[in-house]
Amino acid sequence: MTASRQLLAGRSSGQVSDIMVAMGESISLDIELYREDIRGSVAHARMLERIGILTAEERTSIENGLRRIKTEIESGSFNVDFALEDIHTHVETRLGELIGETARKLHTARSRNDQIAVDTHLFVRRCAAEIAGLVWQMCATLYERAASELDTILPGYTHLQIAQPVRLSHHLLAHFWSFIRDLERLDRAARAADRLPLGSGAMAGVNYATDREFLRTDLDFREIYSNSMDAVSTRDHILEFLHALSVCALRASRVAEEIIIWNSMEFGFIDLPDELTTGSSIMPQKKNPDLAELIRGKVGRVCSHYQNLSMNLKSLPLTYNRDLQEDRMPLLDADRQMRLILPALNAMLAGMRFRTERMRASLQKGHALATDLADALVVQKGLPFRDAHHLVGAAVARCEELGCTLPELPVDERENISPLLADDDFYGAALDLAASTDRKVSAGGTARTRQLEQLEQAGQALSQWKKHNWRFPPLDF
Amino acid sequence: MTASRQLLAGRSSGQVSDIMVAMGESISLDIELYREDIRGSVAHARMLERIGILTAEERTSIENGLRRIKTEIESGSFNVDFALEDIHTHVETRLGELIGETARKLHTARSRNDQIAVDTHLFVRRCAAEIAGLVWQMCATLYERAASELDTILPGYTHLQIAQPVRLSHHLLAHFWSFIRDLERLDRAARAADRLPLGSGAMAGVNYATDREFLRTDLDFREIYSNSMDAVSTRDHILEFLHALSVCALRASRVAEEIIIWNSMEFGFIDLPDELTTGSSIMPQKKNPDLAELIRGKVGRVCSHYQNLSMNLKSLPLTYNRDLQEDRMPLLDADRQMRLILPALNAMLAGMRFRTERMRASLQKGHALATDLADALVVQKGLPFRDAHHLVGAAVARCEELGCTLPELPVDERENISPLLADDDFYGAALDLAASTDRKVSAGGTARTRQLEQLEQAGQALSQWKKHNWRFPPLDF
Amino acid sequence: MTASRQLLAGRSSGQVSDIMVAMGESISLDIELYREDIRGSVAHARMLERIGILTAEERTSIENGLRRIKTEIESGSFNVDFALEDIHTHVETRLGELIGETARKLHTARSRNDQIAVDTHLFVRRCAAEIAGLVWQMCATLYERAASELDTILPGYTHLQIAQPVRLSHHLLAHFWSFIRDLERLDRAARAADRLPLGSGAMAGVNYATDREFLRTDLDFREIYSNSMDAVSTRDHILEFLHALSVCALRASRVAEEIIIWNSMEFGFIDLPDELTTGSSIMPQKKNPDLAELIRGKVGRVCSHYQNLSMNLKSLPLTYNRDLQEDRMPLLDADRQMRLILPALNAMLAGMRFRTERMRASLQKGHALATDLADALVVQKGLPFRDAHHLVGAAVARCEELGCTLPELPVDERENISPLLADDDFYGAALDLAASTDRKVSAGGTARTRQLEQLEQAGQALSQWKKHNWRFPPLDF
Amino acid sequence: MTASRQLLAGRSSGQVSDIMVAMGESISLDIELYREDIRGSVAHARMLERIGILTAEERTSIENGLRRIKTEIESGSFNVDFALEDIHTHVETRLGELIGETARKLHTARSRNDQIAVDTHLFVRRCAAEIAGLVWQMCATLYERAASELDTILPGYTHLQIAQPVRLSHHLLAHFWSFIRDLERLDRAARAADRLPLGSGAMAGVNYATDREFLRTDLDFREIYSNSMDAVSTRDHILEFLHALSVCALRASRVAEEIIIWNSMEFGFIDLPDELTTGSSIMPQKKNPDLAELIRGKVGRVCSHYQNLSMNLKSLPLTYNRDLQEDRMPLLDADRQMRLILPALNAMLAGMRFRTERMRASLQKGHALATDLADALVVQKGLPFRDAHHLVGAAVARCEELGCTLPELPVDERENISPLLADDDFYGAALDLAASTDRKVSAGGTARTRQLEQLEQAGQALSQWKKHNWRFPPLDF
Repeated sequence: MTASRQLLAGRSSGQVSDIMVAMGESISLDIELYREDIRGSVAHARMLERIGILTAEERTSIENGLRRIKTEIESGSFNVDFALEDIHTHVETRLGELIGETARKLHTARSRNDQIAVDTHLFVRRCAAEIAGLVWQMCATLYERAASELDTILPGYTHLQIAQPVRLSHHLLAHFWSFIRDLERLDRAARAADRLPLGSGAMAGVNYATDREFLRTDLDFREIYSNSMDAVSTRDHILEFLHALSVCALRASRVAEEIIIWNSMEFGFIDLPDELTTGSSIMPQKKNPDLAELIRGKVGRVCSHYQNLSMNLKSLPLTYNRDLQEDRMPLLDADRQMRLILPALNAMLAGMRFRTERMRASLQKGHALATDLADALVVQKGLPFRDAHHLVGAAVARCEELGCTLPELPVDERENISPLLADDDFYGAALDLAASTDRKVSAGGTARTRQLEQLEQAGQALSQWKKHNWRFPPLDF
Repeated sequence: MTASRQLLAGRSSGQVSDIMVAMGESISLDIELYREDIRGSVAHARMLERIGILTAEERTSIENGLRRIKTEIESGSFNVDFALEDIHTHVETRLGELIGETARKLHTARSRNDQIAVDTHLFVRRCAAEIAGLVWQMCATLYERAASELDTILPGYTHLQIAQPVRLSHHLLAHFWSFIRDLERLDRAARAADRLPLGSGAMAGVNYATDREFLRTDLDFREIYSNSMDAVSTRDHILEFLHALSVCALRASRVAEEIIIWNSMEFGFIDLPDELTTGSSIMPQKKNPDLAELIRGKVGRVCSHYQNLSMNLKSLPLTYNRDLQEDRMPLLDADRQMRLILPALNAMLAGMRFRTERMRASLQKGHALATDLADALVVQKGLPFRDAHHLVGAAVARCEELGCTLPELPVDERENISPLLADDDFYGAALDLAASTDRKVSAGGTARTRQLEQLEQAGQALSQWKKHNWRFPPLDF
Repeated sequence: MTASRQLLAGRSSGQVSDIMVAMGESISLDIELYREDIRGSVAHARMLERIGILTAEERTSIENGLRRIKTEIESGSFNVDFALEDIHTHVETRLGELIGETARKLHTARSRNDQIAVDTHLFVRRCAAEIAGLVWQMCATLYERAASELDTILPGYTHLQIAQPVRLSHHLLAHFWSFIRDLERLDRAARAADRLPLGSGAMAGVNYATDREFLRTDLDFREIYSNSMDAVSTRDHILEFLHALSVCALRASRVAEEIIIWNSMEFGFIDLPDELTTGSSIMPQKKNPDLAELIRGKVGRVCSHYQNLSMNLKSLPLTYNRDLQEDRMPLLDADRQMRLILPALNAMLAGMRFRTERMRASLQKGHALATDLADALVVQKGLPFRDAHHLVGAAVARCEELGCTLPELPVDERENISPLLADDDFYGAALDLAASTDRKVSAGGTARTRQLEQLEQAGQALSQWKKHNWRFPPLDF
Repeated sequence: MTASRQLLAGRSSGQVSDIMVAMGESISLDIELYREDIRGSVAHARMLERIGILTAEERTSIENGLRRIKTEIESGSFNVDFALEDIHTHVETRLGELIGETARKLHTARSRNDQIAVDTHLFVRRCAAEIAGLVWQMCATLYERAASELDTILPGYTHLQIAQPVRLSHHLLAHFWSFIRDLERLDRAARAADRLPLGSGAMAGVNYATDREFLRTDLDFREIYSNSMDAVSTRDHILEFLHALSVCALRASRVAEEIIIWNSMEFGFIDLPDELTTGSSIMPQKKNPDLAELIRGKVGRVCSHYQNLSMNLKSLPLTYNRDLQEDRMPLLDADRQMRLILPALNAMLAGMRFRTERMRASLQKGHALATDLADALVVQKGLPFRDAHHLVGAAVARCEELGCTLPELPVDERENISPLLADDDFYGAALDLAASTDRKVSAGGTARTRQLEQLEQAGQALSQWKKHNWRFPPLDF
């Protein structure tokens, strides 16, 4: 046990029970924060030098020690000891071994309470940016695929019932725009974490006129927490990040669900790449969409982390309470899961082959153009609305009896229903899929011109976000 | 049943089972959206006039009819019929009764899918702004009380153990700043809802070159959904709102918990106003903090609505699915609960009396200045750190034996421990509460100067948010 | 305000703020507990008579008064006043109006804390039994339909990919058994609520040797809470009920999802009754499965109530805290939702028509018997496993090229692949769907004999549960 | 890659992408199921021998191989390879290396779908029993402490306000009885898992007349799943276990909250053992109740696992979907957390010292006996209720002015208020704490006689549960 911990443990005479060690340790999780923790210490050492508490030599010695610890962790030679509880104590203890007494000075004007706060702020900032990169990549994939599938027509569904033909670009861009909104949300999570808590001490501030502005600049934070009690108690930045990830995971589950349905034999709208599926050696067409199922299965996991932290925070009085240590699991695991979910979804979106003939077949079998035909009877043949509906209803019913689609309905059958339907040119034009989509001319609609417009907007959104300044925290030193 | 609904019901030959009515109705909830629904219809009518589908007379007739329906609803004379399912059909049906066939034309180029979307977008925008008003009011209360309590000193807690003396202004401002962050979150929820979905039809767009830019201006939206499939499927704006409310409710629970603890006989830091408590006729000091408990008890309710909607959205394929109708309960109830929680908390914060003598007594009994005394021995008397700690530890132990506080420890007792402690001037100064807080000079710390600085910042934040443009949707017409 | 409430309000001098009324009222919800509340009072009055606190006349007067209040509530003539907060005070106040001072005596040896406890215990017992009745009804439906569909063969899915042919009875009974487990869970919820809390007073017990055994018998509880502090603090019975409802709702969502998928044009396995769907007047085959979607959409709602109450209970110290009043919404709404979900699902299960030809077509198009064919080659023709797989793989691949199913593959094509496949008798027998299912002879498997066995077991389970003693609490008097 | 996995991977030609490996692996978690997985395989091998598929030699070879694998895992020499996905494939692959081709035969009549099912059923059965052991231990602690604290009187709280004096035994037993209910819940979770799924194959059953009754006996299951599709799809047993753990964690949080409050300087009702706290070297009385805070902080974690799995199961169609693989994290982590929470709470409960003088002081300062005094005036002095209340109210008010307690109120002060209060014998008796508790004579109340009765009941419950047959699954072989 280190000297500082002995002080901490105080009159507990150095005796800590086994259950205390097992409950109290967070190192098994927060070792993942080592880069943030070390960089925070570097900034603190630099500030201590600036206000005269450390000499230049001491500060250099500390930085060198910390650099070596970072290397040890990255090379796997760093020893973890649960009795040392957390990443802070591990780094501090090892620093003491490496550079001796000077290591102790690093803890002037700082406590573990503001140290973990600065670690998680740096972590959220970095991870929000990195995950945004993954989301952006998926948006790029959706954009590219949409651009190529402008003239592919598939059924648009409501209630999982075929409603209207839409262009595949339209469908893919619907997902594109939702993921773009996740970029906004991640940006806000990053901003929520872009505020310096360091310098708050245990909670009341510290007995030194620490230069928090220097710390802010050195760690490139946008702002400084105005209130030290707030700074060590809040977990808003983590909640914000978990919210952004939950919403993103939820929409990933929606796309995954579509992939699973489209990949069913009965729909058959897509072929997934072999390397992303599992299958059967003798049924080549059977390809289990495991990746999509796992994405769907991980959504509850990501969302539950938000609930976990919410429940933790409920009814906690100011300021630091040890409960807050339990912020690690939701934070780290949600981040980790998204780093699986997003590339997995991107790989499927990038690699899937669209079976346009099956999409077309569904549209025809689903009589998706019956309404278009009725509209054409109204507009071009002057029929009253109800009569037009009646005629088309009869035609569809006859198709169902004969087991054919509207375009396949023989002319004599059509004539039986109404001479108006016997006009081949009229009939064929009314049932043209592309023409149908092109009638949806409202802004944001599925008409080809509107799709071109939307692709243009999507391209712009994509390049704007590419230029977005994600303000990665400066973790190297 | 109305003509339009007969069409909708289609071949179901008008027969709808009882369970279908009971399950399908949402009017018992979405009647609360009547203002938004009616105003959306007004905008749509105006747009239809603009593109030549309605004449000016028809549009006027529709507006007048809708105005009358609004009056009927507000005066309580409007009939609700569960078989008419939702607010849209109620308004539409009643409009038909009032103005006849013209009412039917209002449904050109629109579907219930984009209608409910525009309703909830308008609702979230309005409610986010209104709730922000309640949060702002509470921030103002916190600010005013903090300004008055600059020189009140209370124990600062970590682990619900007395840690350091802090100024009460500091404590109150810690809550101030967190609630200020809720204003940011509500602003973002409002922005998430500041995008026009109307004009998307059932999902693919509509067969008319509707003027969505006109709709956007008339309803004062900032943007337009670029993709009609996205517009009718997304509930991001509601999730965003529920997230903002959940985080806000969570921190309300934290303040409520403190009120409950502070109001206990044992802490006794506050007196709550009689009209906000329940009590006992013979135990005047017993005042149950029911309001604070109810706030705490409602947090799970608000947070659970976020889970409800998340779970709903999980795995939903595009586009509209009837599941989405279940967005009403979480949206409306979370809003309603916050309109109870926030004024209740504000009333307690505004009305509580601080019992500063009890705060002071806790600090002394908790030996909160023991560390300050040790520091003084190091700094002023040149004692080594460990020796100083040892001496102070002995003094505290003696106090515990005698049942007194450090300031009350008789000079001979102090002399027995160390002559250094017998110096009354030194001893008294080291144990001065205000002086202790003033040593926490770091930015954001509890020193008086820092508190003045922070009050200045808080005042600025308050007036900036007062000037914030909340962009209330134009619901009157 | 009643006299008793004035005492309660104590020195608050009768002044209660508006926000206190709005926050504090629960009558808008707990009016639904009126039967339980009144019956609890009847039992209490009887007990008070028994121990000599009430005379027989007084008790009779109280019972008559309560009977009249019950009638008033049921006839809608009862006045609700939010300032009277809850069902207890409403009943008490009205009783005072009806019978005068004697009403006050009813509150001897009782508090609102044990009164709400007894109300919710009676409510959970009753509702668990009633909901079990709805679940049982659905099990009966599943059983009947399964019995009729023993010889219908449909694809069994894993990963939403066709895996093996199964008998429809098998699929339906899979749901049957899960719902049977919900009966067990509801039974346990009923038992968790089958313990008398009345007689605990505010929490420490009461100053009378109340006859709790008499109360237990009169209200037909199985047990008595051994500890008064536990009795007024626990909400275990509600959590237990919400758990049972959540699990039941979850599986309802699973069946609903299948209905939605099966009802899609692409699967086409079922036809839902017109009165349970919405549709289109010209596309007769388009029937939106709104009921199934609404069930799916209500699952998050039911499950979120469990979270709500869990979060409420987190960190509540003993004994009664006002937070507990917020148990009403989750309890009452979860119950109400299940009374919608279960009949809706039952109606669909009872009314759906199975399109067995479409099930068969999927099986053939999905080459579901390829493995059976390979097995037959191994077993009957003595081919090594790998060779058999290779041959069948080739046959399937050829089918895909030709756009046919294995049974449709022409004999010359088969001969090209292997002479073994040219044997029509062998080939046909290997591809027989019923024969395939019959090879799954393991207990619980899909073979016809096993299905008959399972139907037998199911029938027994059904009648056992029919005979189950649900111990409805005796609410009438 | 093993031969069997090549078959599984099928035509995917052995190529599995990196993201597929990273997403698909569950070995990092389900390695914890190794005992269950291996024992399930032993049972399966024995059954295969019984029905003639394995020879005795083969079965012996398999058992020996499996025994060696178990040793390897326990000694840490077992290699984990993420590409081998799960525990089943790891064991299977290693078995192949150890005993050659025979290993392959073990996979006759079994699939990974029923294999994971049997593993988790065995795991839940075992862990439910083991955790019940920890709960029982805590109940024993509560019982013992209660038995010793029969004559300690502390304030009973409602609304965290002192309500009535109660015996400490009463308070501790309130927790005792709630934890006893957790034993019931754990027992039901164990029973929910006491049903054999093995023999269900991928989902339809297997092509062998497997002897499931033999498997049932060998693994000591109570029942057999009647339906193979149900058996591989259900996760009811895990939900049941997570529910039991959630409820148990919730009440642990309630006790933890009390410990935190009682341990505050202001309450000061307990001293926690040094080895269970962290503190300050100079403030001996400051002891942070970290363990209690960590328990409170872990409740959200345990509860969130229930939500995670619920959300996962929502809308999953039959039968096995890969989503189900995500059941591991909630199952394993919830179990692990409870193995920390329960011993931690038990250690605190066992080790805490009660500071009875502080409890008594709170009662007096809180005028907890004011109502008793008023009652005595009514009963013994014949005063009307309202007058008695008025007098006592005046006495309390005078105490507050003088800063004393009711027993300390000087006789002349009392006389000033009313001569009735000047009677020292009467006054002292009315304010006797023990006598006050003894007036709560109702069953379950805090009177000494009732406490003795309750201790008796508690002791019986404890020994009944000690004798409970937990049916640990027979994991050794």
